[in-house]
Amino acid sequence: MGLVFGGGSGVRDEAQTKERDVRMVLLEFSMSPLGKGESVGKYVARSLEIVDKSGVDYRLNPMGTVLEGDWDDVFEGVRQCFERMRNDCNRISCSIKVDYRTGAQGRLQAKVASVEKRLGRKLKT
Amino acid sequence: MGLVFGGGSGVRDEAQTKERDVRMVLLEFSMSPLGKGESVGKYVARSLEIVDKSGVDYRLNPMGTVLEGDWDDVFEGVRQCFERMRNDCNRISCSIKVDYRTGAQGRLQAKVASVEKRLGRKLKT
Amino acid sequence: MGLVFGGGSGVRDEAQTKERDVRMVLLEFSMSPLGKGESVGKYVARSLEIVDKSGVDYRLNPMGTVLEGDWDDVFEGVRQCFERMRNDCNRISCSIKVDYRTGAQGRLQAKVASVEKRLGRKLKT
Amino acid sequence: MGLVFGGGSGVRDEAQTKERDVRMVLLEFSMSPLGKGESVGKYVARSLEIVDKSGVDYRLNPMGTVLEGDWDDVFEGVRQCFERMRNDCNRISCSIKVDYRTGAQGRLQAKVASVEKRLGRKLKT
Repeated sequence: MGLVFGGGSGVRDEAQTKERDVRMVLLEFSMSPLGKGESVGKYVARSLEIVDKSGVDYRLNPMGTVLEGDWDDVFEGVRQCFERMRNDCNRISCSIKVDYRTGAQGRLQAKVASVEKRLGRKLKT
Repeated sequence: MGLVFGGGSGVRDEAQTKERDVRMVLLEFSMSPLGKGESVGKYVARSLEIVDKSGVDYRLNPMGTVLEGDWDDVFEGVRQCFERMRNDCNRISCSIKVDYRTGAQGRLQAKVASVEKRLGRKLKT
Repeated sequence: MGLVFGGGSGVRDEAQTKERDVRMVLLEFSMSPLGKGESVGKYVARSLEIVDKSGVDYRLNPMGTVLEGDWDDVFEGVRQCFERMRNDCNRISCSIKVDYRTGAQGRLQAKVASVEKRLGRKLKT
Repeated sequence: MGLVFGGGSGVRDEAQTKERDVRMVLLEFSMSPLGKGESVGKYVARSLEIVDKSGVDYRLNPMGTVLEGDWDDVFEGVRQCFERMRNDCNRISCSIKVDYRTGAQGRLQAKVASVEKRLGRKLKT
């Protein structure tokens, strides 16, 4: 899969990724400028551009973006969005939530699926 | 649409709902017990049961649930989930994010669509 | 203790407060307008004015305000700050974190004191 | 000021710190294990041990710890707390809020002081 947020550490091969799987996390973040008016969609779109091209798996929702990956990679993603935004924004707010579970992967799908399975029906996603 | 989280206030008619539209918010929340082990899916499922039956529009994502509705209604939803959870949980953590915009509605779809439109392509949702 | 955020429910006497102690929570919140420039201190001060006069115990920190009280009372406090802010703000962001623990009280002091006791020294607060 | 969270990058001299001042942020975080019972004070104390010895300025409050420093340094602090916690915790929840303002410093004191000045009185901190 090659470069993951290209965090200065260069290409990481399959073996390296595997060995670090224990640090896989879900990270949801939202980031907005203050002082750029009420509509901040332009800035949010730039962040999603970065995320979408990074190779890290993600899901966009109405209140944030959920990334799944190694701790360092997902935080590198957030940092890149911040660096882009501060080019032309003097004040920035960012909120982040992390959920780490040893050895867990594929939780972008699995967590929602697990709730639906317990309830025996599809939910709105 | 009748009862919205049935917040003790009884049925609300169309006119009443309309008049209060200026307080429409998006609210994302996640709520978990501490002291019930690493797997809290059972408790999360109960909250989604409450949300899904409430009549309030929502979207479930891997890190939380986003509700759209009047301030009082969406907070009443969170409160009902809390009341259910504290029946058998002694410690509960809850995080909530609210995004209010005067007169805005249908933002569960519109916010994501707006980012996609700016980027000119579909994103992972 | 008299009026607690005067949530439409009038004065509450000692006995009533006691009976509801099981719902005591810590709630931290921060609330800011978007579209009012980079400096939002004026709006934050208004919220603190409401909180400080409410009778609910609280602690202000550089990133938010922590309230301690019954679930309904602390959320009523947040709602009052929101109502004040939306008088002249069209877009508002609010983040809230709640920590509930059955039967616990006085945690505005106790949580910090407990960490200091474990470490055997004073920390910066 | 010497080592700042010793993020693998070694000692940073005055000049280097100065040049990067534009990235100064306030970062509030809280981090708890799931599956270690209701009382997680032991784990929180370990994090504060790391923070208190790091040389980064901070303030502990009942709901989290607010760090002030360069983006990379404060996130390195959170990462070190995470690494320590995952030694014996299989599931970890972490919430983070960041407030960046170009060129601003000393905001651990200044933000609270500014609210007090506006209101013309001391608040509970």
